[in-house]
Amino acid sequence: MNGAGALIRTLVAAGVDTCFTNPGTSEMHFVAALDGVPGMRGVLALFEGVATGAADGYGRMAGRPAATLLHLGPGLGNGLANLHNARRAWTPVVNIVGDHATYHTKYDAQLQSDIETVARNVSAFVRTSASTAALAGDAVDAVRAALGPPGQVATLILPADVSWTEGGTPVELSGPLTATTGTAPDADVVDAAAKALRSGEPAALLIGGRACRTPLLDQLSALAEATGAKLLCETFPARLERGQGRPEVERIAYLAEFAAMQLDGVRHLVLVDAKSPVTFFAYPNKASDLVPDGCTVHPLATAASDVAGAVAALTDALGATGTRPRHTAAERPGLPEGALDAAKVCQAIGALLPEGAIVSDEGNTAGVFAAGATAGAPPHDWLTLTGGAIGQGLPVAVGAAVACPDRRVLALEADGSSLYTIQSLWTMAREGLDVTTVLLNNGSYAVLNMELQRVGADAGGPKARAMLDLHHPDLDFVSVARGLGVQAERATTAEAFNDALGRALATPGPSVIEAMVAPL
Amino acid sequence: MNGAGALIRTLVAAGVDTCFTNPGTSEMHFVAALDGVPGMRGVLALFEGVATGAADGYGRMAGRPAATLLHLGPGLGNGLANLHNARRAWTPVVNIVGDHATYHTKYDAQLQSDIETVARNVSAFVRTSASTAALAGDAVDAVRAALGPPGQVATLILPADVSWTEGGTPVELSGPLTATTGTAPDADVVDAAAKALRSGEPAALLIGGRACRTPLLDQLSALAEATGAKLLCETFPARLERGQGRPEVERIAYLAEFAAMQLDGVRHLVLVDAKSPVTFFAYPNKASDLVPDGCTVHPLATAASDVAGAVAALTDALGATGTRPRHTAAERPGLPEGALDAAKVCQAIGALLPEGAIVSDEGNTAGVFAAGATAGAPPHDWLTLTGGAIGQGLPVAVGAAVACPDRRVLALEADGSSLYTIQSLWTMAREGLDVTTVLLNNGSYAVLNMELQRVGADAGGPKARAMLDLHHPDLDFVSVARGLGVQAERATTAEAFNDALGRALATPGPSVIEAMVAPL
Repeated sequence: MNGAGALIRTLVAAGVDTCFTNPGTSEMHFVAALDGVPGMRGVLALFEGVATGAADGYGRMAGRPAATLLHLGPGLGNGLANLHNARRAWTPVVNIVGDHATYHTKYDAQLQSDIETVARNVSAFVRTSASTAALAGDAVDAVRAALGPPGQVATLILPADVSWTEGGTPVELSGPLTATTGTAPDADVVDAAAKALRSGEPAALLIGGRACRTPLLDQLSALAEATGAKLLCETFPARLERGQGRPEVERIAYLAEFAAMQLDGVRHLVLVDAKSPVTFFAYPNKASDLVPDGCTVHPLATAASDVAGAVAALTDALGATGTRPRHTAAERPGLPEGALDAAKVCQAIGALLPEGAIVSDEGNTAGVFAAGATAGAPPHDWLTLTGGAIGQGLPVAVGAAVACPDRRVLALEADGSSLYTIQSLWTMAREGLDVTTVLLNNGSYAVLNMELQRVGADAGGPKARAMLDLHHPDLDFVSVARGLGVQAERATTAEAFNDALGRALATPGPSVIEAMVAPL
Repeated sequence: MNGAGALIRTLVAAGVDTCFTNPGTSEMHFVAALDGVPGMRGVLALFEGVATGAADGYGRMAGRPAATLLHLGPGLGNGLANLHNARRAWTPVVNIVGDHATYHTKYDAQLQSDIETVARNVSAFVRTSASTAALAGDAVDAVRAALGPPGQVATLILPADVSWTEGGTPVELSGPLTATTGTAPDADVVDAAAKALRSGEPAALLIGGRACRTPLLDQLSALAEATGAKLLCETFPARLERGQGRPEVERIAYLAEFAAMQLDGVRHLVLVDAKSPVTFFAYPNKASDLVPDGCTVHPLATAASDVAGAVAALTDALGATGTRPRHTAAERPGLPEGALDAAKVCQAIGALLPEGAIVSDEGNTAGVFAAGATAGAPPHDWLTLTGGAIGQGLPVAVGAAVACPDRRVLALEADGSSLYTIQSLWTMAREGLDVTTVLLNNGSYAVLNMELQRVGADAGGPKARAMLDLHHPDLDFVSVARGLGVQAERATTAEAFNDALGRALATPGPSVIEAMVAPL
């Protein structure tokens, strides 16, 4: 067996059974070995950012890593933005990056570059496998590193000769690898947090990561009920369980002005798998730190912690085991009517979202009404732009749909953002994924029109405005989607949108609905 | 004046008057400052790989750098693959990468990452500007570094507060910056090369970089004529002047088997702004070094050299000033007929290519007939995939067309490669660029089907083949192009292709012709 064969067998044994690929010549032995290992599924992407974003979406939903297969430094570079998002989501990902044969690197051939340097930008684990004999062991180390906690990006660089040389031996494992238990809670922090929550002073629990999902989310909602603390969530959670019958959680706003209002008066902020809140960007003459003056921050659990243990310890310290979480009541808006706008798009989604849906949200400004419109919809998961690197929504939808074939994925996507990784649509079609993409076409980088004002920049003349404008020429996403093999239609009225969304959600496979909306 | 204003004024003074942009919030002050500096043109790209590839194409044709404007680490990551190609083309490029405000980085907000680390993969110059006062000087240093020789990628990281703070002062320059003279030729190498070329033993001149263009190309052709040496060119030249009335040059083949035949028996290889030839990839049991046994390599000039001085010195040493170059005679194929295939596409291009055309060649396997079919066409420039990172052809066409608005650009593009940076089409439409894209649709990563065999990998089963196949679903590039605002048509016969190409070349602005061809 060659190195590639041993590598793939080891990955499967370790619990990695899906590989999002965009291979080149140096990866051909890995590709050829796929057929010999029935347990590994290969999913082709037409661009590396699709592969890495899909691995992120997969990892968020499956709770275990997918692999990617990328082609040298440039291939990793193309995948970097969505690996950045995965890093910020604490998603486990195992990148396999092909490299030249070990003896070929000294010639500095055209594709030669310093892969490890690029990988370090996003990876907590980087290793170039030195030999076919070592390769399977390297793979186990990479999967372990990816699993964490925290979940993280692990990059294993695979020289072509290490892949093609005979003598590979898979590592025998007793079963799939799982994350180790994280750091135990600090007793002093637990006590301080408990004391703070009992103090009667205004307090909030700020949750993120694993605390946004069952069962911890229910437990934390119950603690908030027991103590009167607000239950807040980080601005961009990797995966938030929400909807009818799930705890009500308020996400910290992207806009610092609103975030400041949410945190106003809070004297104690207990962090549960979340970081202390800061503004997304800096703005002239505004503070970056969102923690109000006089507020004490209690870092109960980080992404590297035993979060469940920390929540249990806090519950014990509070003696709050009898309180029930505060669950959201079922409530859907009615279907919208008349001329279409972003609010009506979100209203229709709220009216029609099916139970168990997974929403991949890169709606940006146009999607701002979505959270409210779907708050009481049947239970669903919400995946967000964790790292702020746009071009994430469609690839994450691909990965989520591969991980959860029995659930409907709804990609809520902004026009500008969609174009970074629009190639995702083709993979949805090839794999027959149940992804309904709602593409909000407002003809602009609308968020930047807002940010241009917010950073205090001069409003700018025609040259500046042209940099934020997506007209001239107008984009026709129906045509683009059809060209990539996905059925698509355009809606300019609420009624047409309602019909299209209802049909799309009831039809197996992918489709795109281009919703024509004005900028906010 | 704020930092951004001083930066843009300094860039213009230094000779950088075009900026390919894909900005975000941290770049809004740069964007807002564009209107205040009439000399700077901003060209919006919908994806960073378009911006960086366009800067490469621009630099190759203009001989001076364009700037790019990119958004933090993920934006640079998305641009990395085409910066890799620019690095391999020795193209001068100045990246301006926005970053968080200096005081914001300590908060490790969502978009924070180690930008300098990513930049080093492709950049010979990396600097984070530390203050508004230093910014304009940093810009001068970046432009100087980009100009070289050799031309290279320079990355200037621009924190948002350095950009927005008042007190910027443009650097006064006496005129646009130009490249300094490179390293003088080594007299011993000149003598040895001259002696070798006079020895009567089989010899070859291997040219690259600036040696592929007027006037050096003529001078080197004359030297080859005078000495009987072969005139060879690197496999992937940045810009090769060719066609009727220009020297005949033989490019080293991509396939090692053919390259070995071209170099067979050569006893002396004189390198002129070219590297010693190696295979593109390594293959099991095949040598990477293409220099035949017993052949002496004479490195007359590298990319960092005074290449003109080296060629002059060699001419003097040979006393070969009276010989004329060997120019290609005018010869065009006739128009093809019947069912379309890749050879006929290239034949039609040879029949119709206009004088002064710039060909951006990412035709890969399907474009293999293009060089032969256009050898005797009216004089034109040929731009190739210097670094092997696909997704280069369309962006380079954008940049070449911006640099040379009076010339027709023909992008010869393979289906698989086009999809990495297909967003280029929109910028062509917005800017009204005279780019005719011939999109060879063979429904596969055909080069990988070949490479799968060549690397000795098992031919693979259905899973492996699916990784190389672009059917299921079929791609419709006419639909994709129209959706991105570019007129397009599909040709399935030679006659239809001839008509479409003739019309496209005669019509201002961009268009796409999708040529349906079978894999080779």
